[in-house]
Amino acid sequence: MRVTIIGLGLIGGSMAIDLKKRKFADVIYGVDKNTLHAETAKNIGLVDKIVNLDEGIKLADLIIVSTPVNIVQTILPSILDKINNQIVTDVSSTKHGICELVKNHPKRENFVASHPMAGTEYSGPWAAISHLYDGRSAIICNQYESSKKALRVVEDMYGSLNMRMIYMDAKSHDVHAAYVSHISHISSFILALTVLDKEKDEKQIFNMAGGGFRSTVRLAKSSAEMWTPIFNQNSENVVDVLNTYIMKLQEFKIKIAENDKSGISKMIEDANKIKRIV
Amino acid sequence: MRVTIIGLGLIGGSMAIDLKKRKFADVIYGVDKNTLHAETAKNIGLVDKIVNLDEGIKLADLIIVSTPVNIVQTILPSILDKINNQIVTDVSSTKHGICELVKNHPKRENFVASHPMAGTEYSGPWAAISHLYDGRSAIICNQYESSKKALRVVEDMYGSLNMRMIYMDAKSHDVHAAYVSHISHISSFILALTVLDKEKDEKQIFNMAGGGFRSTVRLAKSSAEMWTPIFNQNSENVVDVLNTYIMKLQEFKIKIAENDKSGISKMIEDANKIKRIV
Repeated sequence: MRVTIIGLGLIGGSMAIDLKKRKFADVIYGVDKNTLHAETAKNIGLVDKIVNLDEGIKLADLIIVSTPVNIVQTILPSILDKINNQIVTDVSSTKHGICELVKNHPKRENFVASHPMAGTEYSGPWAAISHLYDGRSAIICNQYESSKKALRVVEDMYGSLNMRMIYMDAKSHDVHAAYVSHISHISSFILALTVLDKEKDEKQIFNMAGGGFRSTVRLAKSSAEMWTPIFNQNSENVVDVLNTYIMKLQEFKIKIAENDKSGISKMIEDANKIKRIV
Repeated sequence: MRVTIIGLGLIGGSMAIDLKKRKFADVIYGVDKNTLHAETAKNIGLVDKIVNLDEGIKLADLIIVSTPVNIVQTILPSILDKINNQIVTDVSSTKHGICELVKNHPKRENFVASHPMAGTEYSGPWAAISHLYDGRSAIICNQYESSKKALRVVEDMYGSLNMRMIYMDAKSHDVHAAYVSHISHISSFILALTVLDKEKDEKQIFNMAGGGFRSTVRLAKSSAEMWTPIFNQNSENVVDVLNTYIMKLQEFKIKIAENDKSGISKMIEDANKIKRIV
């Protein structure tokens, strides 16, 4: 299988490593308009060859679009314009807008809308790692809009990354992504902003930072280039879950201010129920 | 050195392991009014012998009080009443109330108020692990109220746990603890409550949970028994930092609702500055 990966960052680069190592891909072509990223991806062996977008489309059996979601929206229609029998998938964190965008494209059935639920707080080809996807979920959206062949190729690809396939419509995906993943990132971004605002002396943050703070603030290192378009694309669902988050914070704050120990304990014990799930 | 540890959970138990292994303690006596915890601590080898509180005080050179902070407040004055030359330290997450409580006690200088900045989301003697404290900060508060000898013993103890000593007054400690540690726990508790509220189907949480969600929600597994008294003791500082956290969430929400992409990016890039510190 000849695979072209467009966007050679953490996500695309990590896919490249394991797709090659596990022999799903015989050859991997890389496309990235950032020449430093492209050269790095070649130099550290993520891809076999750097090509331009048109060559990448022509040479591939499978095209993976792993750019930030706003770029996916810009380039996906023209990629579909140019393909013959190639299969195309994207890996972005919002899916409804993308599915709407190409809904009536004559090559729609060559496209599989997907979202592998994995990542780290790092970005760029330097951040690519093996085993990133092992054991995580790969969400496949609106599978009825893809051909059986396209689906099989993409399922095989995620299978070789050791992922569990989950199917849902694009709209539901965006709701659930907001409720779990997007709100986690926001709570972490705002934690970092709060701590940096309250602690003018950064040394104090270092001194007080136990493993708990480090774990909770980890996602605050995630890149604006990736996350701004996600929040923008999924604004309605994100605002909805943010309202709930803020409401519950207010409730907790009032209980603390009023020394309502049993109320605080009750909320903590309810939060502890997350143990059953993760 | 004969060490008595009162409260055989994650914190006391983890200290017990390394204090014995690294030969700071020749013998460790354990005190816990929860008989299951006491028996477990003995059975899994955290302590050499389970004794009652009075025996523990009598037999020790150094007494470590590692119970939830409300229990520290209940028992610390009577422990100081009963000691002769024994050194006493506590490890709780709020320090001002405790220092005020024993400020005028005739044995005040035998006591060192301290807070090792380490932990996990687990609790009980089963959660005790080696190396928990390595490389973290040990905060020592109001050191001028302790005798040189008491300080030296407690510093040696934290030294054997491979901790860096940091000195600050108890009031500042509580402010900084709220700004870094306590707000992290709240953001995580409320994240769990929000996700559990919005996602009625727990299977969806499991499916959507990447490493990011798992990391951010980790602290939400922390126990109410430990955390309710902390928020209660430090309510003023916690409410203060919660106000900032909620204000910044509102600001971010408005930018998302208004599609203010450059405003969102700017806030994310400001949050990214946490990379410089942790």
